[in-house]
Amino acid sequence: MRVIELHRSVTESNDQDALQLREELRAKGVLLVNLMSAPGSGKTTLLSRIITDLKEKLSIAVLEADIEASVDAERIEALGAQSIQVHTDGMCHMDAGMTRTGLEAMDLSRTDLAFLENIGNLICPAEYDTGAGLNVMISSVPEGDDKPLKYPLMYQKSQALVLSKMDALPYFDFDLEKFRERVLFLNPSIQIFPVSAKTGEGMEDLEAWLLEETAKWKGSGKRA
Amino acid sequence: MRVIELHRSVTESNDQDALQLREELRAKGVLLVNLMSAPGSGKTTLLSRIITDLKEKLSIAVLEADIEASVDAERIEALGAQSIQVHTDGMCHMDAGMTRTGLEAMDLSRTDLAFLENIGNLICPAEYDTGAGLNVMISSVPEGDDKPLKYPLMYQKSQALVLSKMDALPYFDFDLEKFRERVLFLNPSIQIFPVSAKTGEGMEDLEAWLLEETAKWKGSGKRA
Repeated sequence: MRVIELHRSVTESNDQDALQLREELRAKGVLLVNLMSAPGSGKTTLLSRIITDLKEKLSIAVLEADIEASVDAERIEALGAQSIQVHTDGMCHMDAGMTRTGLEAMDLSRTDLAFLENIGNLICPAEYDTGAGLNVMISSVPEGDDKPLKYPLMYQKSQALVLSKMDALPYFDFDLEKFRERVLFLNPSIQIFPVSAKTGEGMEDLEAWLLEETAKWKGSGKRA
Repeated sequence: MRVIELHRSVTESNDQDALQLREELRAKGVLLVNLMSAPGSGKTTLLSRIITDLKEKLSIAVLEADIEASVDAERIEALGAQSIQVHTDGMCHMDAGMTRTGLEAMDLSRTDLAFLENIGNLICPAEYDTGAGLNVMISSVPEGDDKPLKYPLMYQKSQALVLSKMDALPYFDFDLEKFRERVLFLNPSIQIFPVSAKTGEGMEDLEAWLLEETAKWKGSGKRA
């Protein structure tokens, strides 16, 4: 496992950098998924399950972003996936320059699908385009069904929402229909995947969607 | 309920502002508790329980900080407590100037204990002194026992840690002893209160500590 220490990007034109990185990744046929959530939503557990389920079909790599810890990258590496840890030096988000630095340490020639496990935070990561082809956010059942009201930007910036820890639904006062309504009010075209990485519930739909999006992305790169 | 829209503080000397605000609050006999946590840790539910349990003993007010929503302040107001909502205009933290603006809208002459319900975020709020007399953080059981490894600064800046949603312990793979060890490694003098606002477990100890700290704070103001 490699660990890279990041510092604030020199460039001020993050949107331009992100656009360029996205097109480079398209040309290389690598779909980068920016995975965002609150702390403790189960990002690493979800990724572990996806890697295990899809490893015969896709070559998956993970760019782990943390303020200073490296525990998640160790978990991912144990599954045999390519894993690079970046440390953000206290910063609460990843931008396109930081993402590029992390990806440069990866062997992208043997990667179909790369995940950026962004910093656990519902605010800052939504404000920066990382250059990813898809933004996916995770909400977990224990966080409560009112989160879309409080952190709207991330719901608006995401193409898909994974509602994790569905196995905990019986123990929490979480209204699935109300949650769905609130999310769709903010973002009518978002895809919602209720899952439990523990029991496997809903994982098949989410993984079928990831396979489809990866194939579409590769197709778009060949046409370009 | 009053709602105040905040913008970035003009001053650059937040530490100085915070020091001054803390001394003013001490002179007024108002203990301000800065309550920090990840989104969905149960801050508002915990506060509701504390207000209900202590309202005969203390006059409690709540300053609710959110990016744009006002749902929490409505819940607090329904309990009969003084409640002011501040909107941070997208910012991921509260600083001393913003806190002062919020407090100015409160009647502090009839307040013993004021809570600042900071933005749901484990990173940014830990970096700014708000002028509070005490920093208290909440971790919830569903977030997992590895969070101290990933967000160390907030654990280091807090005088007390509330471990919430203890009623969910049987359903999650959460090692209480390992968690306690990790927290105390970062901050050997922190007080840890495992509680469930739902069942009431542990609330008595937490509330006794709040009563004691409020009395100590008032005492220190009289001496000053």
